[in-house]
Amino acid sequence: MSSWGNAVKISLFGESHGEAIGVVIDGLPAGESIDREQIRLQMGRRAPGKDRTSTPRTEKDIPEILSGMLGDRTTGAPLCAVIRNTNTRSQDYGNLMSHPRPGHADYTGFIRYHGFNDIRGGGHFSGRLTAPLVFAGAVCRQILERKGIKIAAHISSVGSMEDARFDSVSIPAKLMDRLSTVSFGLIDQGREEAMRTLIEECRMEQDSIGGTIECAITGMPAGAGSPMFGGIENVISSIMFGIPAIKGIEFGSGFAGAGYRGSQNNDAFYYDGDTVKTRTNHHGGILGGISSGMPILFRVAVKPTPSISRQQETVDLQEHTDTVLTVQGRHDPCIVVRAVPVVEAAAALAVINLLAEVSE
Amino acid sequence: MSSWGNAVKISLFGESHGEAIGVVIDGLPAGESIDREQIRLQMGRRAPGKDRTSTPRTEKDIPEILSGMLGDRTTGAPLCAVIRNTNTRSQDYGNLMSHPRPGHADYTGFIRYHGFNDIRGGGHFSGRLTAPLVFAGAVCRQILERKGIKIAAHISSVGSMEDARFDSVSIPAKLMDRLSTVSFGLIDQGREEAMRTLIEECRMEQDSIGGTIECAITGMPAGAGSPMFGGIENVISSIMFGIPAIKGIEFGSGFAGAGYRGSQNNDAFYYDGDTVKTRTNHHGGILGGISSGMPILFRVAVKPTPSISRQQETVDLQEHTDTVLTVQGRHDPCIVVRAVPVVEAAAALAVINLLAEVSE
Amino acid sequence: MSSWGNAVKISLFGESHGEAIGVVIDGLPAGESIDREQIRLQMGRRAPGKDRTSTPRTEKDIPEILSGMLGDRTTGAPLCAVIRNTNTRSQDYGNLMSHPRPGHADYTGFIRYHGFNDIRGGGHFSGRLTAPLVFAGAVCRQILERKGIKIAAHISSVGSMEDARFDSVSIPAKLMDRLSTVSFGLIDQGREEAMRTLIEECRMEQDSIGGTIECAITGMPAGAGSPMFGGIENVISSIMFGIPAIKGIEFGSGFAGAGYRGSQNNDAFYYDGDTVKTRTNHHGGILGGISSGMPILFRVAVKPTPSISRQQETVDLQEHTDTVLTVQGRHDPCIVVRAVPVVEAAAALAVINLLAEVSE
Amino acid sequence: MSSWGNAVKISLFGESHGEAIGVVIDGLPAGESIDREQIRLQMGRRAPGKDRTSTPRTEKDIPEILSGMLGDRTTGAPLCAVIRNTNTRSQDYGNLMSHPRPGHADYTGFIRYHGFNDIRGGGHFSGRLTAPLVFAGAVCRQILERKGIKIAAHISSVGSMEDARFDSVSIPAKLMDRLSTVSFGLIDQGREEAMRTLIEECRMEQDSIGGTIECAITGMPAGAGSPMFGGIENVISSIMFGIPAIKGIEFGSGFAGAGYRGSQNNDAFYYDGDTVKTRTNHHGGILGGISSGMPILFRVAVKPTPSISRQQETVDLQEHTDTVLTVQGRHDPCIVVRAVPVVEAAAALAVINLLAEVSE
Repeated sequence: MSSWGNAVKISLFGESHGEAIGVVIDGLPAGESIDREQIRLQMGRRAPGKDRTSTPRTEKDIPEILSGMLGDRTTGAPLCAVIRNTNTRSQDYGNLMSHPRPGHADYTGFIRYHGFNDIRGGGHFSGRLTAPLVFAGAVCRQILERKGIKIAAHISSVGSMEDARFDSVSIPAKLMDRLSTVSFGLIDQGREEAMRTLIEECRMEQDSIGGTIECAITGMPAGAGSPMFGGIENVISSIMFGIPAIKGIEFGSGFAGAGYRGSQNNDAFYYDGDTVKTRTNHHGGILGGISSGMPILFRVAVKPTPSISRQQETVDLQEHTDTVLTVQGRHDPCIVVRAVPVVEAAAALAVINLLAEVSE
Repeated sequence: MSSWGNAVKISLFGESHGEAIGVVIDGLPAGESIDREQIRLQMGRRAPGKDRTSTPRTEKDIPEILSGMLGDRTTGAPLCAVIRNTNTRSQDYGNLMSHPRPGHADYTGFIRYHGFNDIRGGGHFSGRLTAPLVFAGAVCRQILERKGIKIAAHISSVGSMEDARFDSVSIPAKLMDRLSTVSFGLIDQGREEAMRTLIEECRMEQDSIGGTIECAITGMPAGAGSPMFGGIENVISSIMFGIPAIKGIEFGSGFAGAGYRGSQNNDAFYYDGDTVKTRTNHHGGILGGISSGMPILFRVAVKPTPSISRQQETVDLQEHTDTVLTVQGRHDPCIVVRAVPVVEAAAALAVINLLAEVSE
Repeated sequence: MSSWGNAVKISLFGESHGEAIGVVIDGLPAGESIDREQIRLQMGRRAPGKDRTSTPRTEKDIPEILSGMLGDRTTGAPLCAVIRNTNTRSQDYGNLMSHPRPGHADYTGFIRYHGFNDIRGGGHFSGRLTAPLVFAGAVCRQILERKGIKIAAHISSVGSMEDARFDSVSIPAKLMDRLSTVSFGLIDQGREEAMRTLIEECRMEQDSIGGTIECAITGMPAGAGSPMFGGIENVISSIMFGIPAIKGIEFGSGFAGAGYRGSQNNDAFYYDGDTVKTRTNHHGGILGGISSGMPILFRVAVKPTPSISRQQETVDLQEHTDTVLTVQGRHDPCIVVRAVPVVEAAAALAVINLLAEVSE
Repeated sequence: MSSWGNAVKISLFGESHGEAIGVVIDGLPAGESIDREQIRLQMGRRAPGKDRTSTPRTEKDIPEILSGMLGDRTTGAPLCAVIRNTNTRSQDYGNLMSHPRPGHADYTGFIRYHGFNDIRGGGHFSGRLTAPLVFAGAVCRQILERKGIKIAAHISSVGSMEDARFDSVSIPAKLMDRLSTVSFGLIDQGREEAMRTLIEECRMEQDSIGGTIECAITGMPAGAGSPMFGGIENVISSIMFGIPAIKGIEFGSGFAGAGYRGSQNNDAFYYDGDTVKTRTNHHGGILGGISSGMPILFRVAVKPTPSISRQQETVDLQEHTDTVLTVQGRHDPCIVVRAVPVVEAAAALAVINLLAEVSE
C-alpha cells in the first residue's frame, strides 16, 4: 500500500513515466501557514542534476497544489499536490518485461502484479516517488518548526568514508538549520571534496556506492509515542522503509550498542535545571518507544544504486533462459546524497503523527 | 498502542505484576489445527530460568485459551489466551515512582501516563509481555508451516562474539527446524560454551551484555508484500520494534551493504529449473518491498539488559534532585538468548499478514 | 472483525458456550477513576432474567479486570476484562451444524467459516457478546460524564406501540440520568405496563416482537467529527451495526425527514446568550458529519428475536434437503429491552473516539 | 477523514471552488480492464443540469487519470483521477464566514476548522465531492460486474410519493442493468412524470424535498462479511454516511421489520437445487453481518436540499447577533435524483472491500 499514517495520512500515487506523481495529505490541522518557498527548497534538495555541476536545479518539478489550501493557509481539508511527468512516452504501452534489472523491483513487481505493472522507469517503484514524499514532509516540518521541533540529516558515510556524527546530547540549532537546507549535507564540511571524489570514481568505474544517513530530531517533547507497536521506532521505521534502497535502521547506539555492556550503554539521568536529561544518549531519545526529551537519533543504511552501466547477469522472463543485461542511461552513482532530504521528510511525517497521538 | 496487524490483528494486554497478561488474535482462518504442545515448546524457549541451570522451565506460564478454539481447531472467532501472573502484590498500590531506572521506560512512561502507569516490574513495558507475543506467533507459525514456510532465528552475536551466519541462498530445512525449537540457538553449536561463559562473566561483574539475532524465513512465495509502506521491511520492522530492547534492524546485506559497490551488492538472477533465483542474496529476499522467493533474512540489534546490579546515577522525580540507584533482584545478564523465539514469533505474525494481502 | 476504534480500540472475544467472553480496551487515558459499581449497574441492565420477575439479576456475569487498572484508576495500558461462561458443555465438541435457525447467523457463519465456527448458542455471533461491549461502554461513559457528556436511550417502540420521543432541543439532565440507569427505559413511564403486556402476549403466542431504540447524547461540544467518512453518523453506525439484531439507524429527522420539504427540515440558527443553537433539531445535532452542539439524536431498528418456539422451515445442510425446526429453550420475546444499555455503551465508545480526534 | 477502505482504500480531495477535486484509489487489483466510457456514463448520471432540460450533460467534469493505468488496464499502483473546477474565483480569498446556511455544514465546519476552512460553495463539504466517489465506484463496479455482481438503485420515494420496491427474493438482471445506467431511476417508470412534477412544484415554491433511495446488490456470494464490526451493514453504512444529506439507512425489512413479529420477519430456508435460499428476504441478504447469497437490499434516507431560496433565520458569527439569510443561486430542489448513482458507487466500494476480506 502506498498510504501511510493515522492522524495525518498520506496517499502517494504516480509512476515514473506516467502522467504525474503526487500525494494527498489528509488530516492536516487547519489554519497553518505554509511557505511555498520552503517547499521548493526541500524539493530542490532532492531534485536530480545538481551533483557535479552545481547548476541550479531544473524547475520542472514544481508541484501544483490542487486542494486543502486557501491563500497560504491550510483549510483542514485534504491537501493534494501533483507533479507532472515530462518524460511520458505513450508509445511504450507494450510493457514487455523481459530482463529484470538486478537489485531492482522489476522481477518482484512482475510477480506481484502478474505482469501488469508499469515497468517504464521503475513505475510506481521508482525513486521519483520520493518527490511527493518530500513535498508532504516540507508541509509538515513547517508546522513542527513552529512547535520548536527541528529535523535534520546528513550523509554519515559513503562506502567506508565517514562524516562526523551528531553530538548525541546537544545539537546546535544552527547545525540543524544548515543541514536541513543544503544539498550535500555533512557535519564536517571539510570531507565534502573527498566524498565527491569517491562518488565520481564510482561513476567513472561504471559502478555505484552505498552509504548511511544519520538523522536527528530536536525539540521533541518527552512523552510522545506509545508502548509496544505504537513506539517511535515502530512508527519511524514503518515509514522509513518506504524509501527505496533503505535496507536498515538503527536508533541511538543501535548495532554498536549491541556490542556494549549494560554499564556502558545505560544513560544516567540528571536534572539540568528543571529538565530531566541523560548524560549520554545511547537510547537515541527513545525509551520504551516513548521520547525522553533528548534528541531522537537514528541512522539508515542505503544500498548502492542498483542501476550500474556494467553488464550483469539476469534472466529472460519470456524465454525462460539466463541472459545478460546492460542498463542504459545516466544514473546517480550514489543515491545517498539525494536521499538525505527524503529521510528528513519521512521523519517529519512520523513526528506529526506521533504528536497527534500524545494530545489524545 | 498495543495492537498490531491488519488481516490478523493482535491486541496484547497485561502488566508485569497485574493479574494477568495475554493476547487476543482476531482474524485467524477457521479450521486450522493447533497443537498445544508446539505452543508450550515455543513459550518454554522464552521462559526464564533455563540459563545456567538447564532445569526444566517452571510450568507457571501455561496460557489458558478462552475463546476461538473448539477442540484443537480454530473457529475463526477471536482467540484469547490469558497467562496468570503469580507475583501479584496488591499492597503495592502506592505506585510511587521516584527513581527511574536508567535504560528503562520508567521515566518516559511516567511522563506519558502522568504518573498513573503501573511501574511494578516495568508494568506494561515489561519484557514479560513478550510471552503472549510468543503465544500468538506459535499459533501462526503452525499455519505457516503447513504452507511450507519456516521461520528460525539464532544468536548471531553476544557482545563481539559471533556465531556463523546463515548461508543466504540456501538454508537447510533441518537447520531451520533445529533452531526453531532449541533454547540457545546457534548455527555453530561449538561456540555455545564460550558464549555462555561470556554471559556468565557479565553476570559476575554485575553487568549485562547486548547482541544480535539473525532471522530467516524460508518458503516465502515470490510476490508477497506491497510497494512503499506495505513492504516486507516496513511490516516486519513495525512489529519487531515492539519487542523491548530492540534498537536496530537490517535486511539482507543491510549496514554492511551500505559500504558496498553496486557491482558487489546486486544479486544476479538465474533460472534454477523453472524457478528464478539469485546467485547471492544481498537483497535479503526482498526487492521493492516484495518477496523474491529467496530466503528472507534480517538481523536485529538487542541492547544490553538495562537492569544491572551496579549503582547508577538517576534522579528523584519527587524531590527533583539527582541521586543514585541500585537495581535489586536477579536479572538476565543477556536478554538476547530469550529474545530469539520472540523475534521468530513476531516474524510469524508479520508473514501471516503479508500473505493475507497477497491473496487479495 | 471483532475489533473497532482508532484512538480507543476495543477487541471483543468469546463464544456463547466457550470458556469466557471479554474485551481488551486499548488507548484509554491514564489516571481515570473508574467506579466498578457503575460498571455492575450497566451490566445488570443488560443481564437476562429481570423481565417479568423483577428479581435481582443473577450475579454470575461479574467481569474480572485483568489489566490496565491499578486500584480504581486506569494506568493507560490496555484494560482487559473477562467474563466466565458457566454453561460450558465440553461434550458438545461434535459441532454438527445441520439445521440453521431462520433469522440467525447459523447458515452464514457456516459458510464463512467452512463449518468450523462454534455454533453452540450462536458462538461468537451470540447476543451474549454484547456483555463485554456494555462493560467497555461503562468504562468510557464515566470518563465522558466527567466532561459533561451524558448518553441515554429508551425503548421508543415495541411493535407499533410507541413511547414518547425526546424533546430534541432540550433534554433534562434528570431524564438522561434516569434513563441511563433503569432496566425498562421509557420516557413516558405510564406506558410500561401496556408494553410489558404486549411483550408477554408475544411470549404466550410462542412468538417475538421487534422495536426501536432512541438514543440521545447531550453535552457534546460543537466541532467534533470530520467530513465525509469521519463523520459522526459514520462512526456511530459503524459500531452500532455490531450489535446483533440492529437493522437500521437514522439520525435526527431521518426517514421521516426524507418526506419533508427543506423549509420544514432546515433548523434555524439563533444565539442563546453566547451559544449558537438551532430552534428545531431535525439535523440530530450533526451537520456535515460534525457536531453542532445540539443534542445528538439517533434511532435504531431492532428486529424481532429470531428464536421463536414455533416450528419453522429450514434446510438440512448435511442431507441437502428441506426440513423443519423447532427452536428449543427460553428466549427473550423482545430483545429491545435489554438492547437499550448496549446501544448506550456503543454510543459511548463512538463518542470517546470522536473526541480524541478533535483534540488532534 | 476523507479516506476510507482497507483492501481498496480511497482518499478523496478537493473543495467546491478550489483548483480541482479528485480521488486516489489504492489497492486495486492489477490487470483489470477499465472502460472509460462506463466511467463517463456513471459520472454523467450524477452530473447536474439534466433535470428538466434533458440536454446532454456539460462535458466539463471529465476526470483525468494521472496514474495507475497503462492503456486500458490497471497496473496495481494507486489510481489517481483529477477533475478540474471551472468556477474557481481567486478573489474570494477573504473567506468571511458570517451567516451560516441552515442545514449546511457552514457552522460546524467553522467551529471544526477554527474558521480556516474554504467555505466557497461548501468547500470540502460540497456535494460536488461525490463526483470523484462516483468515479471510484465506476472503476470498482466494472471489476465486480466481471464477478457477476450487479449494483443498482432507484428513487424509492420523493416526499410521500413512492416508487415500487424491488422484489426482494428475485431481481431481474435486466432491471439491474437498466437502473444502473439511467438518470431518473424508477422501477415503475409510469411514476416518473408525477414525480418530476412534484419536484418542479417544490422548485416553484422556492423549496426543496427529500426522499429515499433503495439499493440492491445481486450476485454477492454467501459468506462475505465478518461478525460484529466487520459486518456488511457496518461497512456499507460507514461509507454511505459519507454522502452528504444521507441521514438514515436500513437493511432488509429495517424499520418496518422493527414492527413485526418474529414469525413474520424470519425468512425460511429452502433448497433451490443445490443452493440454499430464503423464501422471503426480510434479512436483506445479511445475517450476522455476513451475506446469505440472497440479494443485499438497503434503503437510505436523503434529507431535502438545505439550499432553498426562501429567507431563513440564522446568526451573524462576526457580530454575534441573530439575522436572516436568503441563499442565492440555482439549486437542485431534490438531491435524491442525482444521489442514486452516488449510492451505487459507494456500495461498489463497500462490496470490493468485503470481497477482499473473504479471500483472506
